[in-house]
Amino acid sequence: MRLERKAVAQRRVSRAGAEADDSVAVEEPLDIRVAGETVAVTMRTPGADHELALGFLFSEGVLHGLEDVGSVFYCGRADEEGYGNSIEVTPAPGAHVVLRRVDAARRGTLTTAACGICGRQSIDDLIAQCGPVPAFAPLPHELLAHGPLALRGVQPAFDVTGGIHAAAVLDRRGAILASAEDVGRHNAVDKAVGMLLRAGQIPAQRTPGGPEVLVVSGRASFEIVQKAAVARLAAVVSVSAASSLAIDLATRTGLVLASFARGGAAQLYAGAGLVTG
Amino acid sequence: MRLERKAVAQRRVSRAGAEADDSVAVEEPLDIRVAGETVAVTMRTPGADHELALGFLFSEGVLHGLEDVGSVFYCGRADEEGYGNSIEVTPAPGAHVVLRRVDAARRGTLTTAACGICGRQSIDDLIAQCGPVPAFAPLPHELLAHGPLALRGVQPAFDVTGGIHAAAVLDRRGAILASAEDVGRHNAVDKAVGMLLRAGQIPAQRTPGGPEVLVVSGRASFEIVQKAAVARLAAVVSVSAASSLAIDLATRTGLVLASFARGGAAQLYAGAGLVTG
Repeated sequence: MRLERKAVAQRRVSRAGAEADDSVAVEEPLDIRVAGETVAVTMRTPGADHELALGFLFSEGVLHGLEDVGSVFYCGRADEEGYGNSIEVTPAPGAHVVLRRVDAARRGTLTTAACGICGRQSIDDLIAQCGPVPAFAPLPHELLAHGPLALRGVQPAFDVTGGIHAAAVLDRRGAILASAEDVGRHNAVDKAVGMLLRAGQIPAQRTPGGPEVLVVSGRASFEIVQKAAVARLAAVVSVSAASSLAIDLATRTGLVLASFARGGAAQLYAGAGLVTG
Repeated sequence: MRLERKAVAQRRVSRAGAEADDSVAVEEPLDIRVAGETVAVTMRTPGADHELALGFLFSEGVLHGLEDVGSVFYCGRADEEGYGNSIEVTPAPGAHVVLRRVDAARRGTLTTAACGICGRQSIDDLIAQCGPVPAFAPLPHELLAHGPLALRGVQPAFDVTGGIHAAAVLDRRGAILASAEDVGRHNAVDKAVGMLLRAGQIPAQRTPGGPEVLVVSGRASFEIVQKAAVARLAAVVSVSAASSLAIDLATRTGLVLASFARGGAAQLYAGAGLVTG
């Protein structure tokens, strides 16, 4: 796995009184625009920005698939400071792009404008939007439990910084179809999903060698499970804990949720009946 | 430290084929409203919601201090579903509350509407808003290195779930002035800052026993350092890595930034000259 040059920077560090140079993960804002309007600004690690924008807009329901995308390009002139931190997605002619939805997205989650918002309502809204995940053949437990090991093999920026999130999408044999690193866990997922969206593999079909399992470093939150559900993946594997709402959403949509996936073991919080072995 | 009842829920888990009940961190949306208008929806762990709302609005520059706050209350009727997940902050009469700023806040960070946004501009904007952190007496290295140990003592929800973030604010002797747990690292910081805001201790003055050090589980991002700078704290300690922009912001504002604080040691990425021992 090649280290993306822009993902890592050098900064001075003082350790036990001695000064040294250290590699740190780069964090920069990315302004995501659709038809000239900012719909989100996310603090991300540069690299795979086109995929991040597409994956984010797809997860949020703004784009329904690659057919909604006209063009994707950086705004501004290449010699301006900050060039590469603002990206424009132009919808395809005739695409039905709903911007209002993202206009209400704050801190990275779908929202309703209703007073009295609750977790159950967040789940109902999402299911109304994308429906339950289509049926799939049972997944081997070993595939889920070893997901983080596969992920660990595609974390070149983590290797040198010791602190950056990662996400990968696997097929049911454990082959890595897409992977990305980012200071934000959600961005890493958006990038990996965006890569497969561009390749025409997402929304996932139940075809041999197709995308099925999302593996993430860190915790599984509502939003991580949401991204997997919208992409029609079959399972989410997280290295750390799952939240109550992540579990409830996975259960309602029919996703497998395996958390605390460490040392070749994992705990199943949803979809245990869809896992063999 | 008492465990907040609402912070933890029970869910079924399958481990090595055996079913059991497990404690998981609760995640629910919180709709934060100012003068009747939603300014942010954040996925958070219930508990200290008033403080979360105040801390968030203060960090984002909507509220400049406790004097801007009229009242804080949950929207709706207590017998409705979702009650407790929407909170209203009414500005004090005559308070100068700028809502437009948060209207552009997406995914939890201050943004500018300009095309060509960049990391340096994010830092310049913040310094224009709040200025550098006021001078303080040098902090002992031991205080920073042992911050996570102090934090570990006030994580009752982590003790039972194994997966929830935490933040604490310490004085320079290491006494914990405020602490909070949340599925979101930023929320935990907002809660702790909001507690001290309500107590009239933030923005921090350089008084004996006053708040000086923010300790966070997980990584130090731009936004975490931003919250500390706006609160006029002297140092940020993170258990995990710091991003490039977090380091740059700490350096520019005059904050100490100590990361990888583990096992009684820490690495100084900013403000090494402000630390003794």
